[in-house]
Amino acid sequence: MADPKAETKPDTKSRILDAALALFNERGSANVSTNHIAEALGMSPGNLYYHFRNRAEIVRGLFQRIMAAWAANYALPAGKAPTFRTMDTMAAGNFDIQWQYRFFFRDLTMLLAADADLAAQYRTNRDSGMANTQALLRHFASAGLMAPADKRTLEEITQLLWLVGDFWLVFRDAGGGEPAEADMDQGVRLFRRILAPHIIRDKSK
Amino acid sequence: MADPKAETKPDTKSRILDAALALFNERGSANVSTNHIAEALGMSPGNLYYHFRNRAEIVRGLFQRIMAAWAANYALPAGKAPTFRTMDTMAAGNFDIQWQYRFFFRDLTMLLAADADLAAQYRTNRDSGMANTQALLRHFASAGLMAPADKRTLEEITQLLWLVGDFWLVFRDAGGGEPAEADMDQGVRLFRRILAPHIIRDKSK
Repeated sequence: MADPKAETKPDTKSRILDAALALFNERGSANVSTNHIAEALGMSPGNLYYHFRNRAEIVRGLFQRIMAAWAANYALPAGKAPTFRTMDTMAAGNFDIQWQYRFFFRDLTMLLAADADLAAQYRTNRDSGMANTQALLRHFASAGLMAPADKRTLEEITQLLWLVGDFWLVFRDAGGGEPAEADMDQGVRLFRRILAPHIIRDKSK
Repeated sequence: MADPKAETKPDTKSRILDAALALFNERGSANVSTNHIAEALGMSPGNLYYHFRNRAEIVRGLFQRIMAAWAANYALPAGKAPTFRTMDTMAAGNFDIQWQYRFFFRDLTMLLAADADLAAQYRTNRDSGMANTQALLRHFASAGLMAPADKRTLEEITQLLWLVGDFWLVFRDAGGGEPAEADMDQGVRLFRRILAPHIIRDKSK
């Protein structure tokens, strides 16, 4: 019989990413060194460097996880037309991911400025994500769920959704007080507030 | 006859703030030390420290300027009722200020985390600013310019306006490419996009 422990034990790379994520979220990524991460794991710095050459590589490893979570979150349900409920679910999923990886959104400007590779990945991902959002809005319009809108209107609604989608937590943080996972619900309501005036038939209700 | 040069020459404190602003905007505030600022002015570090004890005091000095610029921008015109044109003008002014002090908005999370006094000032200012925005929206509703809206709707429109108002440049930056002052015009259009569905009579047209 196979040892179930051996099968489910996370590998060292994953354990390093998990520990880094917890410390980055708690202290901000700029205040956490690779030595802090190794220390939290009871691991020698040399062992950590065997897996990740520097902190930037760890951040990139966490961004790979974010992108995988986004890809799963934004995959359209197979075999049925998307509704506003689909979009609500995507919005809720987006804010869950944002909460889980909150260091990334808080430190975004600094992280992108410090790592051109990361910036390029983020931008490619955002460009294709915004194109997908526009395609979804065009689908809603052609399915009679949303009022027909010209190209610029769709572009601007998409910009607003993405601005809220990427920066709601940062905005919430800047207002002070301890942010909570429940604050992410307000992000979903802001998505709805942007869309509400354009909705003409809402099958999700 | 008084020497006009002596009267208009900016004082040393102002010159330090001007130089710091230029360097912060160009390199990010985290990458600029008080020594860099003194060097840019051809000033001894000791002379700079006579005016500002550390970089945090310089940032606070620049935030005083931002608050003064905001106060002038958001003062309602005396003796006449505000219209949506008033709000467009305020939005344009807001984004001009954001562009002029762009380091502050780019580095906001880090700056507020590093300085509790600055964070308290920012929050007091934001709270009263958001209350003013809601009062303006209530005025528009009672003047028949905007559809009547419940408390939560007004709160959420205000949150959206402020989110765009504080983070449009950061969102634009994260998308890559060199941002330009003209990009701020798109921020004004996003303000209009948030408000447009609620406007029922627009005297500014």
